[in-house]
Amino acid sequence: MSEKTLVGIVMGSTSDWDIMKEAAQICKDFGVSYEARALSAHRTPKELEAWLADMEARGAQAFIAGAGAAAHLAGVVAASTILPVYGVPIPSKYLKGLDSLLSTVQMPKGIPVATLAIGESGAANAALAVVSVLALNDAGLKAKLLEFRKTQADKVRGSVLPQL
Amino acid sequence: MSEKTLVGIVMGSTSDWDIMKEAAQICKDFGVSYEARALSAHRTPKELEAWLADMEARGAQAFIAGAGAAAHLAGVVAASTILPVYGVPIPSKYLKGLDSLLSTVQMPKGIPVATLAIGESGAANAALAVVSVLALNDAGLKAKLLEFRKTQADKVRGSVLPQL
Amino acid sequence: MSEKTLVGIVMGSTSDWDIMKEAAQICKDFGVSYEARALSAHRTPKELEAWLADMEARGAQAFIAGAGAAAHLAGVVAASTILPVYGVPIPSKYLKGLDSLLSTVQMPKGIPVATLAIGESGAANAALAVVSVLALNDAGLKAKLLEFRKTQADKVRGSVLPQL
Amino acid sequence: MSEKTLVGIVMGSTSDWDIMKEAAQICKDFGVSYEARALSAHRTPKELEAWLADMEARGAQAFIAGAGAAAHLAGVVAASTILPVYGVPIPSKYLKGLDSLLSTVQMPKGIPVATLAIGESGAANAALAVVSVLALNDAGLKAKLLEFRKTQADKVRGSVLPQL
Amino acid sequence: MSEKTLVGIVMGSTSDWDIMKEAAQICKDFGVSYEARALSAHRTPKELEAWLADMEARGAQAFIAGAGAAAHLAGVVAASTILPVYGVPIPSKYLKGLDSLLSTVQMPKGIPVATLAIGESGAANAALAVVSVLALNDAGLKAKLLEFRKTQADKVRGSVLPQL
Amino acid sequence: MSEKTLVGIVMGSTSDWDIMKEAAQICKDFGVSYEARALSAHRTPKELEAWLADMEARGAQAFIAGAGAAAHLAGVVAASTILPVYGVPIPSKYLKGLDSLLSTVQMPKGIPVATLAIGESGAANAALAVVSVLALNDAGLKAKLLEFRKTQADKVRGSVLPQL
Amino acid sequence: MSEKTLVGIVMGSTSDWDIMKEAAQICKDFGVSYEARALSAHRTPKELEAWLADMEARGAQAFIAGAGAAAHLAGVVAASTILPVYGVPIPSKYLKGLDSLLSTVQMPKGIPVATLAIGESGAANAALAVVSVLALNDAGLKAKLLEFRKTQADKVRGSVLPQL
Amino acid sequence: MSEKTLVGIVMGSTSDWDIMKEAAQICKDFGVSYEARALSAHRTPKELEAWLADMEARGAQAFIAGAGAAAHLAGVVAASTILPVYGVPIPSKYLKGLDSLLSTVQMPKGIPVATLAIGESGAANAALAVVSVLALNDAGLKAKLLEFRKTQADKVRGSVLPQL
Repeated sequence: MSEKTLVGIVMGSTSDWDIMKEAAQICKDFGVSYEARALSAHRTPKELEAWLADMEARGAQAFIAGAGAAAHLAGVVAASTILPVYGVPIPSKYLKGLDSLLSTVQMPKGIPVATLAIGESGAANAALAVVSVLALNDAGLKAKLLEFRKTQADKVRGSVLPQL
Repeated sequence: MSEKTLVGIVMGSTSDWDIMKEAAQICKDFGVSYEARALSAHRTPKELEAWLADMEARGAQAFIAGAGAAAHLAGVVAASTILPVYGVPIPSKYLKGLDSLLSTVQMPKGIPVATLAIGESGAANAALAVVSVLALNDAGLKAKLLEFRKTQADKVRGSVLPQL
Repeated sequence: MSEKTLVGIVMGSTSDWDIMKEAAQICKDFGVSYEARALSAHRTPKELEAWLADMEARGAQAFIAGAGAAAHLAGVVAASTILPVYGVPIPSKYLKGLDSLLSTVQMPKGIPVATLAIGESGAANAALAVVSVLALNDAGLKAKLLEFRKTQADKVRGSVLPQL
Repeated sequence: MSEKTLVGIVMGSTSDWDIMKEAAQICKDFGVSYEARALSAHRTPKELEAWLADMEARGAQAFIAGAGAAAHLAGVVAASTILPVYGVPIPSKYLKGLDSLLSTVQMPKGIPVATLAIGESGAANAALAVVSVLALNDAGLKAKLLEFRKTQADKVRGSVLPQL
Repeated sequence: MSEKTLVGIVMGSTSDWDIMKEAAQICKDFGVSYEARALSAHRTPKELEAWLADMEARGAQAFIAGAGAAAHLAGVVAASTILPVYGVPIPSKYLKGLDSLLSTVQMPKGIPVATLAIGESGAANAALAVVSVLALNDAGLKAKLLEFRKTQADKVRGSVLPQL
Repeated sequence: MSEKTLVGIVMGSTSDWDIMKEAAQICKDFGVSYEARALSAHRTPKELEAWLADMEARGAQAFIAGAGAAAHLAGVVAASTILPVYGVPIPSKYLKGLDSLLSTVQMPKGIPVATLAIGESGAANAALAVVSVLALNDAGLKAKLLEFRKTQADKVRGSVLPQL
Repeated sequence: MSEKTLVGIVMGSTSDWDIMKEAAQICKDFGVSYEARALSAHRTPKELEAWLADMEARGAQAFIAGAGAAAHLAGVVAASTILPVYGVPIPSKYLKGLDSLLSTVQMPKGIPVATLAIGESGAANAALAVVSVLALNDAGLKAKLLEFRKTQADKVRGSVLPQL
Repeated sequence: MSEKTLVGIVMGSTSDWDIMKEAAQICKDFGVSYEARALSAHRTPKELEAWLADMEARGAQAFIAGAGAAAHLAGVVAASTILPVYGVPIPSKYLKGLDSLLSTVQMPKGIPVATLAIGESGAANAALAVVSVLALNDAGLKAKLLEFRKTQADKVRGSVLPQL
């Protein structure tokens, strides 16, 4: 299974990378193979479809899609595959991602996009959600996820507030 | 030119017809040929693409697309054609079309969706916007549009408020 | 594997059942074993924790949590397990689920809640998202999911709009 | 037809130019003649009306109107002409264009304003929407529009994400 | 002064009368002469302008304008007169008047529209605001306004809550 | 009448002055006497009441009240006087004045607050609205207001957009 | 202490009673003496102030204030007393209490209004919050509150979902 | 009573301290003992529960909880104790605390979270609300609270607006 690429990370524009790299970083930290691409549901629909098919052929288990404003990318991905699809609302310039969130999460019955929070937290959590899925059948990953949870709890535990 | 179908009206679900028939009615009133279809960007992307191509081949000059919630239909249509595309935000069950509006209008640079108001007014106005485009090169339609404007003004003029 | 219960469906109140039964129905339609419970993150935190642990012991692969208003249930579930957790924003009486959506989806980094749309569509899609996860390692379920997609596409294809 | 000015671009204030120049730039790039003016629906209604009439006399085929906050300009333009009118919501200082968007798009039945996204993307897309209309009867423009689409797709295709 | 008509009440459509009659009723209750008309900023701009001029000639001291959705009426009135103009946001079908409110109140510097609440309360209060202006130079009206305030206070004072 | 102070301008905090000075400046420009004070509906209700009474005794014809967030100041002023009261929503730190606007404009029937736009435009327009009231019985002021309108129209007329 | 009235419940109008009776019912259920009154911050400020003073003299330990739209009542109460004040946003006709919530909760530093949810839940919870305060020094009340929590947990525990 | 710690201040992350220190400062100013901790409802639920129990054992009379985005902390605290709980919505990165506010205030019937304003004002007011509760049975604290109110009123009284 070592040559598969397990996760496809796609975003509408290279300018979304600042947010979406949080998803890539989590994959990297967990040792989950991924491929990240900038492909647009509107500008390059054919390439998007081709990439999705290619990723499936290469063993992808899930897709993470981030887009902003009238964010159709995750929905278009979800329409093209029956693999789990996670949506990350990218903050938009003026409405700060409220448009991105509604465009991503409010999908009609039948085509789910599992949506995370607006911005960096959402990107990281999309990858963690994928890890939780992969961990269902991967004891090593499950152990890493438990360790991750423990580490972040320890970090909170160890935090000290400044004195007034 | 009598055998062309000038306007394609598409909506995500037959339940959108109550709203979208307003667009069809305007086309009918103006004698503009149209074809209306329920096709989903997410559930039937191939059929949608095929219908769009077929409509273009049959001489379509514009598309009107209505969808609700995470309303991707108009954007997907706009990505598939360089014909003018008009979006109608269908009121959604809980957010009343605010989600539909933002998902339709907030398109990225390069793929315009000319968006009208949420609901019935928007559907009628989408068709009127198409009529205004067709009237650029159709003196008969231009006359009808001027007449329509005059009639609606007359209706306002003739309106009488109840006595207190 | 026949004695496992694969999906835990939990909601804050029995009044959420009208929405959440859509999730249960999808599980039933796909032959995925589930258990549905009304348990509150605030009123019965101990029972919730006990049920989550019990479900994990009985082989649960994912949880679906629906709650309204200050909807903390999905987040609390996600804090208690590393299994995949799906959140369904239940429409609230006055704000119509905008509060439920934000309370469910805007989770901090580290504790993902994969969130679906407000209301019935979201409940059904949460279950479909779980099915997509289970189908990764279950060819029969994968076939059913492909069939489900085909059936819903056929339904759209066969839809006929009324005549004007 | 070379001496006609095909597109009128109007905005409520010179301070809107930073946004609206995106529309002008698209016209320029496509070789579509335009005239841009700052004229206010509220402060200079007579001049606005005169300019609209003059533009029509000079062969205008469409108007693009950008305004912010209680953005009435596009609606007032649409009330004065039967030419196609496109609205661009200018981001407002405090509400970031949500007010501008609603004031522009929510037009009553009978007087359509085809509305684009808030800000720069919307301004560019308004001009692209006009180009799509003009291209209906101008094969050269149609070719340029197809080329534009291809170029922007190529740009996405050629984009490379940084390495982590 | 008995032959003047002091207040012009204008609304975009006769369907707004259910709300706007609250303004007329207050005028009637205070013995302030008024004329109410349905005239549209978009459909009948000439008639609107003519009526405004006529009302000014007949001694109008203020205008009250009610409109819904992309509510431009009050702003257009304010642009045509230097008399005080009061705006009443009419509740819209889907967004419940949030669009009407923002379209009415967010006027640019230089053209004020003094805006009241969405709906019936706002219509009544617009008339009361006009009464407060007229009372500046009319001792009888001032006395009536003081009496009105006293009566409504008495009504609150006399209110009795049901027993549990 | 030269010794009267015609307009009372009140704000909840000295930090609101940056916005509210726009109202003072308009008064000054029009030669309308005013007094500006920082007084809080919540922190100094007695002083507020005393100042309002004092202003009335000194001939005040209107009050302008600006406050932010849960902006009660204008409403409290309106409850204390039958003089015309104008509300200016001060932009708040996090919600940018949406809270201020709703807290100011949504007054119950019987106690009108004539509300202007959020921020600087609203402050200036509140003073212009007062000027329009005072001009009803002051020919000099009426002439100045007409001149003001002409000047601002001239300014728009004379505006020149940069070349692309 | 038996003759004291411990809680003052005040609302802007008798029409708020349907919501606010939930607060009264909780007081009654817990045996906490209360007095409920309809008094308006705007229409009857003097009576409100007198009642607040009277309640304090009679031993009141807290106030609960419910109001809708531009909901100033709780803030005005909080400005008149240093007793704990709880605010209940009453759902408004058009904006459903979003205006009421922001007008109640967004108080400036120095004058706190402890705010609960919009509507019935908020009214009941305001009284429960008061009970939690009184229970600090009343062992009997503390026992009742623990019992209330247990009862509501039992009710959740005993709830059974319908079969599909 | 000198060895008790009367107030527990808890926040989801050390990054919330910039806001929450306002609550601590008020406690310090009033001589009310407090302990401030960063503990997460999601990342460290056990430690949170342990700390809450420990604080109760040490005589805590109230908790103040601040969290952002899907802000569950105050609700989880309120579910674990019958002591009064105050919620402070921490401004979130993209939605500016609207999500935090709704997640904190919209609690279901039975588990009240008394919520204050978004941000610094809310943090300070949460502590002032606690002081108002403690002052019910502490004459010294009551005197300090009256003095605080007087001081802040004096500060408003002494404020001077700049000259134009």
